[in-house]
Amino acid sequence: MLPTDGFLGSEFEARVERAQTLMAAEKLDGLLLTFGDNIRYFTGVDADLGASLARPWFVVVPASGAPIAIVPSLAEGLMRKTWIQHIRSWPSPRPEDEGTTLVVDALASLPRRFGRVASEFGLETRIGLPLSQLNEIIKSLSGVELVDGASLIWSLRMIKSDAEVAKIQRATDIAAAVFAQVPHFVHLGDSERMIHQRFRIKLLEEGASGVGLTCRAGPGGPSVVTAGSVSDRRIADGDLLYLDTGVTHDHYFCDYDRNYQVGRASDALLFAHERVWEAHEAGLRAAVPGKTAGNIFEEMAKVLSSGRRDLNSNGRMGHGLGLRVTEPPSVKVGDNTVLRPGMVLCIEPALEYEPGKIVLHEETVVVMDEGARLITPRTPRELPQII
Amino acid sequence: MLPTDGFLGSEFEARVERAQTLMAAEKLDGLLLTFGDNIRYFTGVDADLGASLARPWFVVVPASGAPIAIVPSLAEGLMRKTWIQHIRSWPSPRPEDEGTTLVVDALASLPRRFGRVASEFGLETRIGLPLSQLNEIIKSLSGVELVDGASLIWSLRMIKSDAEVAKIQRATDIAAAVFAQVPHFVHLGDSERMIHQRFRIKLLEEGASGVGLTCRAGPGGPSVVTAGSVSDRRIADGDLLYLDTGVTHDHYFCDYDRNYQVGRASDALLFAHERVWEAHEAGLRAAVPGKTAGNIFEEMAKVLSSGRRDLNSNGRMGHGLGLRVTEPPSVKVGDNTVLRPGMVLCIEPALEYEPGKIVLHEETVVVMDEGARLITPRTPRELPQII
Repeated sequence: MLPTDGFLGSEFEARVERAQTLMAAEKLDGLLLTFGDNIRYFTGVDADLGASLARPWFVVVPASGAPIAIVPSLAEGLMRKTWIQHIRSWPSPRPEDEGTTLVVDALASLPRRFGRVASEFGLETRIGLPLSQLNEIIKSLSGVELVDGASLIWSLRMIKSDAEVAKIQRATDIAAAVFAQVPHFVHLGDSERMIHQRFRIKLLEEGASGVGLTCRAGPGGPSVVTAGSVSDRRIADGDLLYLDTGVTHDHYFCDYDRNYQVGRASDALLFAHERVWEAHEAGLRAAVPGKTAGNIFEEMAKVLSSGRRDLNSNGRMGHGLGLRVTEPPSVKVGDNTVLRPGMVLCIEPALEYEPGKIVLHEETVVVMDEGARLITPRTPRELPQII
Repeated sequence: MLPTDGFLGSEFEARVERAQTLMAAEKLDGLLLTFGDNIRYFTGVDADLGASLARPWFVVVPASGAPIAIVPSLAEGLMRKTWIQHIRSWPSPRPEDEGTTLVVDALASLPRRFGRVASEFGLETRIGLPLSQLNEIIKSLSGVELVDGASLIWSLRMIKSDAEVAKIQRATDIAAAVFAQVPHFVHLGDSERMIHQRFRIKLLEEGASGVGLTCRAGPGGPSVVTAGSVSDRRIADGDLLYLDTGVTHDHYFCDYDRNYQVGRASDALLFAHERVWEAHEAGLRAAVPGKTAGNIFEEMAKVLSSGRRDLNSNGRMGHGLGLRVTEPPSVKVGDNTVLRPGMVLCIEPALEYEPGKIVLHEETVVVMDEGARLITPRTPRELPQII
């Protein structure tokens, strides 16, 4: 067992093999990876100190053969503990050549069949180095063109192995254990800040590593469901309390929310809750191989409001999940990604049933041959209460 | 008081004014910001869900006048709570035009004096959108060239206001309160994982938001001091336990470490600890306006080993601190950044006194007219013990 999130070397070998199959189809000589998630996907580690921008990392996956990691001296020891055999490093920081020469050399040494190497340029990707450094690399390459590899990368990462699904399940179980305790440690009159703090402490107690949490409440529902500063507002009778957590376990995310009625709930809120719950049923039924991500949205939109398609400012009702808390595809009209076994999706119907009152439910599923299997415990049909 | 990390609007106005002074000197019509930290620097909020790559944010700071925020619909409500007056948004996600048109329009509408707008291309910056989208923006601009603004951005961000220093001080105080308890909650035989968990729970109890922590131990010292998976190794007699924490408060980081001798310490370890402590004294004395970041390194290197300059694989012995856990400058030979009042620096002399045994001390200072003022409580000269 490698010290890389508890995966076996065979997990990474399988990923490289799948990548190489796709590279052959897309006429590529290799992949150049610079962004943390993608480096982790192939090696099991990344800069992690995502927080520091001083020292870029690189991985080159050739069209055949083993990957090459090019990392700052600081990270060499860590990389040597992984399954990666080919490791090159430079004394970093060294702004005048922060790995540039090593990367250019590695790309120039790839067996040249097509003269094309793909990198992280397109949809829902980022480059993990300064743009000016990337431009230097591009300028120094001769006979090798860097092209967009986003669709290849997401084709790979969208399909999770059983080992990856198990990580997401574990992260979800950690969060579920804390959600189950909410009615015991949250009470009418507590501030959002107090709830936020207690919830995150319990996540750590349950063994989470990352402890992202959004905590929002408002009369009849929160008015926004996005992250942002926690407030000192105290939850009051008639509120809907919304808790949405992105716990990580071995760098894989869970992402799901729960709603709690604080004291009494209006009929309008209970009706909206029921409507969203039913829309969810329709969405879960639609998450089967062969349908598209957009189909899930359409089925839920039908239930939510007879076909209205702009139901909340999120612009979508779900997304992929894995090493990122949101990954492609988007559960929205126009996303024609065909669902395939191994995809892990967060499905989140939402309704702003009155201006500034949002009800949003989120569940995670893995697409299986026979349909969606829930990873989250299904939200109770009856809204749980906090007193 | 705005809900933006507790800063007043005047804090942001002052930042914009400083930016505009620099823009005039560098003949720029504006700044285009896409990366979370820089967006937060001018608005007080950012995507935060740094975790999601689906929806880029943009801020345009014109050479004169007020900034314009261009954000996904999801974030419009949040942005309206900040000091920003000019807000534009689009229904997102919309991969075919993820804000591109709005950004091009905003840049085209800037009063044109120089035809140059600076963005995040250079040293220790990243772009906060897919490269292919940036290329589309560049292609759609006519008469406006995007140039590198890294040195301008860091000139600004390197100098902290009193309000920023207070945030860093608060984050540091939170961590200090937990460090002070370590000998009470850590004992010989505890695993790194247990220590890691307890320390982070205490950080939350003390009011931290981000709770980054590296926990490493080894006989006579850890062999690596970088982040990475936590191990189940139990600390044993003769170990040096190294804890390095990057707590955040209102998105500002602290970054400092503490070392603890577990049971007995060898003479060699005690000697190395003393040597590093003395090097720190020299480094702290050198952190005065007019000297350079490189000078601090040189003074410490003299004490550590009569001028040896490659003392550990980190490649430097310190860095700036603020909205990122590492910011320019680098405390290393060759970094000629002149120290100025308001700079916050982590100074970290380190010695690998035997192969695989590292002693690294880290303190944070703010550079003042009269010299360095410590933000961290100074590491005790005598190594604290865990029993």
